[in-house]
Amino acid sequence: AFLNPQPSSMASKSEPNRNPKYDPRKPHITDTPISWQNWYQHVNWLNVYFIGGIPLIGCIAAAFTPLRWQTALWAVFYYFCTGLGITAGYHRLWAHKSYNARRPLEVFLALCGGGAVEGSIRWWSRDHRAHHRYTDTTKDPYSVRKGLLYSHLGWMIMKQNPKRIGRTDISDLNENPVVVWQHKNYVFVALGMGLIFPALLAGLLWGDFWGGLVYAGILRVFFVQQATFCVNSLAHWLGDQPFDDRNSPRDHVITALVTLGEGYHNFHHEFPSDYRNAIEWWQYDPTKWFIWTSKKFGLAYNLKQFRSNEIEKGRVQQQQKKLDQKRSRLDWGVPLEQLPVMEWDEYVEQTQNGRGLIAVAGVVHDVSGFIEHHPGGRAMIASGIGKDATAMFNGGIYNHSNAAHNTLSTMRVGVIRGGMEVEIWKRAQSEGKDANYLKD
Amino acid sequence: AFLNPQPSSMASKSEPNRNPKYDPRKPHITDTPISWQNWYQHVNWLNVYFIGGIPLIGCIAAAFTPLRWQTALWAVFYYFCTGLGITAGYHRLWAHKSYNARRPLEVFLALCGGGAVEGSIRWWSRDHRAHHRYTDTTKDPYSVRKGLLYSHLGWMIMKQNPKRIGRTDISDLNENPVVVWQHKNYVFVALGMGLIFPALLAGLLWGDFWGGLVYAGILRVFFVQQATFCVNSLAHWLGDQPFDDRNSPRDHVITALVTLGEGYHNFHHEFPSDYRNAIEWWQYDPTKWFIWTSKKFGLAYNLKQFRSNEIEKGRVQQQQKKLDQKRSRLDWGVPLEQLPVMEWDEYVEQTQNGRGLIAVAGVVHDVSGFIEHHPGGRAMIASGIGKDATAMFNGGIYNHSNAAHNTLSTMRVGVIRGGMEVEIWKRAQSEGKDANYLKD
Ligand code: HEM
Ligand code: HEM
Ligand SMILES: [Fe+2]
Ligand SMILES: [Fe+2]
Ligand SMILES: [Fe+2]
Ligand SMILES: [Fe+2]
Repeated sequence: AFLNPQPSSMASKSEPNRNPKYDPRKPHITDTPISWQNWYQHVNWLNVYFIGGIPLIGCIAAAFTPLRWQTALWAVFYYFCTGLGITAGYHRLWAHKSYNARRPLEVFLALCGGGAVEGSIRWWSRDHRAHHRYTDTTKDPYSVRKGLLYSHLGWMIMKQNPKRIGRTDISDLNENPVVVWQHKNYVFVALGMGLIFPALLAGLLWGDFWGGLVYAGILRVFFVQQATFCVNSLAHWLGDQPFDDRNSPRDHVITALVTLGEGYHNFHHEFPSDYRNAIEWWQYDPTKWFIWTSKKFGLAYNLKQFRSNEIEKGRVQQQQKKLDQKRSRLDWGVPLEQLPVMEWDEYVEQTQNGRGLIAVAGVVHDVSGFIEHHPGGRAMIASGIGKDATAMFNGGIYNHSNAAHNTLSTMRVGVIRGGMEVEIWKRAQSEGKDANYLKD
Repeated sequence: AFLNPQPSSMASKSEPNRNPKYDPRKPHITDTPISWQNWYQHVNWLNVYFIGGIPLIGCIAAAFTPLRWQTALWAVFYYFCTGLGITAGYHRLWAHKSYNARRPLEVFLALCGGGAVEGSIRWWSRDHRAHHRYTDTTKDPYSVRKGLLYSHLGWMIMKQNPKRIGRTDISDLNENPVVVWQHKNYVFVALGMGLIFPALLAGLLWGDFWGGLVYAGILRVFFVQQATFCVNSLAHWLGDQPFDDRNSPRDHVITALVTLGEGYHNFHHEFPSDYRNAIEWWQYDPTKWFIWTSKKFGLAYNLKQFRSNEIEKGRVQQQQKKLDQKRSRLDWGVPLEQLPVMEWDEYVEQTQNGRGLIAVAGVVHDVSGFIEHHPGGRAMIASGIGKDATAMFNGGIYNHSNAAHNTLSTMRVGVIRGGMEVEIWKRAQSEGKDANYLKD
């Protein structure tokens, strides 16, 4: 339950999210199959209220609240602040330690991130680390393997068995005073930054308290939540997999646009401690730009970045994998070791009996069906029949393309014993001609 | 000279384009270097007149000739007819025999192609076959290696040494009555179909003889010539090389748009006897559509097509080549055989002396510089130091990504003699413990 205050659980370092009322010896509701009788017990009603109920109230209230342009601008601006609280703060700073932040930036991100109403840094990061470590397994708290909707919000709306979710080390977060403070006072942070502050600001500056509450508070929370939830759903469902296709994370510009740049998620799961998600300058990653700018102002430092050599290696390997898959679906001709072995004289004899055979590089090819289709004309290809056409084919007359070599390999019917040149030399020797040819 | 009538040369089958005045024993002008004294002798003035002079006259005449809409439509329509005469006729039918045409279609293409004023079928196809067989070499009549402008029209404007251009077999064309007839009467065909017919048609149907001559005749010839010349220039200069990058032909949609679909030229040089240039349905290849439609009307048959297996094989090979180039520019770590061999005890000892070494799969890695950057945290990676971390690294604790394996390989510093497990087993045995472990 992402809005449950859990002060007592702070004692146990590894399981910060267990409700104090939870007794590990009693069977958990998730162990009972869902049915018409018990379905309401499976639902986390508090979260239903926060994710669905409040926005609904917001929509109704909006019908009675005129939208002033100052409030509209403020809502959009505050949307970006609280969004960055999640992406630059919760995600890249605390869950992944991809850079270090000075205290003022930490406080800003902890407050703004709280205003997105998605749980405390501590709770969020613990689940997110489990998500990375156990991606797509049953220990993944929001595994997309359970469905797109489940990964988007089902995992919050339905009760979870706390034993199921993979454990991760969050000792670093337990040592961070900002994180601990935010966790202990999470209800006040969420209400204060989520609703009261945006309403107060609009009320004090341009006298639109209710507009501030409805638009910059309630409805803005709804949009920020849905946008950041997309990192768990859309980013594991839509797009390419340039680095690894064994797991679900994917790269897509649409996800990036929705999530303040968290859409290059295949990259991110491969290189989680890189402060960037988009590595090209022309890709949309405002979270990266924000971190980079913070560094210029001395508020962030130690920005981590994987070597481009390692990144490109990953790309090459994935491309290789795809290429190998494509290759294996094509016909590359009978492998040489599966071909019958022929004598040179046998080959020549068969062509004298009318078979359209051509020997190239020690391999006999049946070109009968191709003679009429030969791009270089009938006469050219016919001139190779019954001969060693290796040289003709490879530049003696015409240096054939790759395509020609590929076509040729599908026509294999036999291998000549000992290779052809040797055969010819042997014959020459036994016939006493050209014997000096062998001597030099 | 593409407009020279050469009746007498018909006698010699292999060299149909030699001017009867040409004497092979006298030195040819192209053997003399170009200079301020002799440059005008190097120029083929007749072609300058046809390619540059006539269009110039056309432009001047156009300034005095009002353009009527019927004439404009007719000029565009006739542009497509004469363009197809070259692409579907000269090129794909006669030069490449990529399909067969019934007599009426042959006559149509021979007449329309003549109306493009680019020389006779026989002359054009002979040069084109040499272009394919000797692409990019000195025997290529319009090699792009001599410059883009040369391949576009320089080769026609400058005199050529007839001995230079590669010889090709055109016996099939010499046996074709339509081709021979068109060659013998080429001057009449070119003047008749290039200028007189478009003018007469406009004159008789809507009384615009001069408009027909200037717009559907002269200027239309200019545009058709420039467009089809692009196959020799642009198609060897602009675009991708999905099938082979050893030669100059390239694929580009712009070239396709300009040349009635001849823009997929990398494909075309690989698969010249395929009646298609664009193999995807959504690519622009009106010449292919024309041939396909002719087939539906029973005018064309035996349309040749390479097997898609062969086409895809070419693509895979070219992709592999590019991938290998990319791979070779990356650092893949010191190869195992170049690493020093260490004893297991040596490895353990060094870590006790403070070196951050981790052994994975029999290889020792120096991770000192990476401990602080480890995405899984300091504690995790430190727990592997001085141990056999093979299992931990490969799923025992966390199943590392490709990226992690790649990073690891750049940290290699040694190989453990005999592999690690063996070392441990040996020790166990010598110490008398777990000996039964070895027995099963
Ligand atoms: C051994 C005697 C052969 C000779 C002398 C010969 C000669 C030629 C020549 C001169 C060309 C150039 C045609 C042009 O582009 O205008 C050509 C093209 C071609 N030939 Fe052959 N050929 C021979 C055998 C074969 C065989 C056995 C194959 C079967 C796979 C083959 C496949 C091709 C292909 C696919 C082309 C199109 C251009 C290319 O892809 O390189 N040829 N050949
Ligand atoms: C041998 C002891 C090691 C242990 C127990 C260990 C453990 C872990 C764990 C638990 C994670 C998951 C972190 C998360 O995604 O939240 C992780 C990630 C990672 N570790 Fe290690 N690690 C070890 C050694 C190494 C070494 C030697 C390297 C050096 C290349 C390395 C490179 C990485 C990388 C790149 C990641 C990011 C995720 C990924 O690419 O798979 N680890 N490690
Ligand atoms: Fe993810
Ligand atoms: Fe992440
Ligand atoms: Fe070409
Ligand atoms: Fe061609």
